[in-house]
Amino acid sequence: MANLDTILLDHSHCERKAAGVALNLMFRYPSYTRLVRQLTAIAREELEHFELVNQWLEKRGIPLAPLSSPPYGALLKAEIRRDEPERLLDSLLVSSLIEARSHERLGLLATHCQDRDLADFYQSLMASEARHYGVYWVLADTYFEPDVVTERLEELAIKESEFLAHLHPEPRIHS
Amino acid sequence: MANLDTILLDHSHCERKAAGVALNLMFRYPSYTRLVRQLTAIAREELEHFELVNQWLEKRGIPLAPLSSPPYGALLKAEIRRDEPERLLDSLLVSSLIEARSHERLGLLATHCQDRDLADFYQSLMASEARHYGVYWVLADTYFEPDVVTERLEELAIKESEFLAHLHPEPRIHS
Repeated sequence: MANLDTILLDHSHCERKAAGVALNLMFRYPSYTRLVRQLTAIAREELEHFELVNQWLEKRGIPLAPLSSPPYGALLKAEIRRDEPERLLDSLLVSSLIEARSHERLGLLATHCQDRDLADFYQSLMASEARHYGVYWVLADTYFEPDVVTERLEELAIKESEFLAHLHPEPRIHS
Repeated sequence: MANLDTILLDHSHCERKAAGVALNLMFRYPSYTRLVRQLTAIAREELEHFELVNQWLEKRGIPLAPLSSPPYGALLKAEIRRDEPERLLDSLLVSSLIEARSHERLGLLATHCQDRDLADFYQSLMASEARHYGVYWVLADTYFEPDVVTERLEELAIKESEFLAHLHPEPRIHS
């Protein structure tokens, strides 16, 4: 709450990165019709959110600027196995976990933010993050056996919470 | 006209690539507010077109599949100078030229396509391509002196037409 401007700027970067991740997967798996269709919708929505967050930045007089990322994303990315089909499974599940965690974080912001309009904005984005979490998970279930998905999701979820157990000193959405 | 299915598949790849190019520029120049704002709108629109083209593919029973790119894009990309600020100028002008050329090609498809609905579809996309051409050009004019922009645009436009003077043997939007 003491660093809302930085959090907003970091959030802007998160939405652009989320669109980039969806688009990269569409590039990597161009024949996976269901994946392409669902991720096109997600990429479009992330870009819409990116625009909305940027309107908040403008409203508060915060200039667009680079901002160092917390280690969260890179640590998760390092867990993605290199060979197919594991690479696809892990990519989908890592994205799924990031969306779920974003849902949690935006929820906390919505609950604790004193600015009523900004709190409402965070609230409005929460539902999308939860939906995206579901889309990535269902895509994993489309291309892999449910048991394989559940087992790997558990492994990655444990890693993910371990990464966040070490608090990153800078104010970020995924600190 | 004899290879409309391949042209549609290539067109789908073109729209996804165009979204990717816009997003990459947003990543590379995160503090360039005007660029970020305009390219967010372009990326969203390219993804919308990607979805529309994919609906045409589905309607005609053409599965999503990889397709080799013609040399056009790679040749133009090779003309982009490596150092800033030239890299930004060239990136914007190359995108501008690709959009202008796409406008011409979709226009030819709209004129000659026998399928009335598909011709109308090409017609409807033409206007966007022309607008995107303008957006990229105006962005170049925002960050560079008009004389510098005009001179470099002329150089690149000559290169661009030279690349297309050698007809690529496969049916593609930019053959």
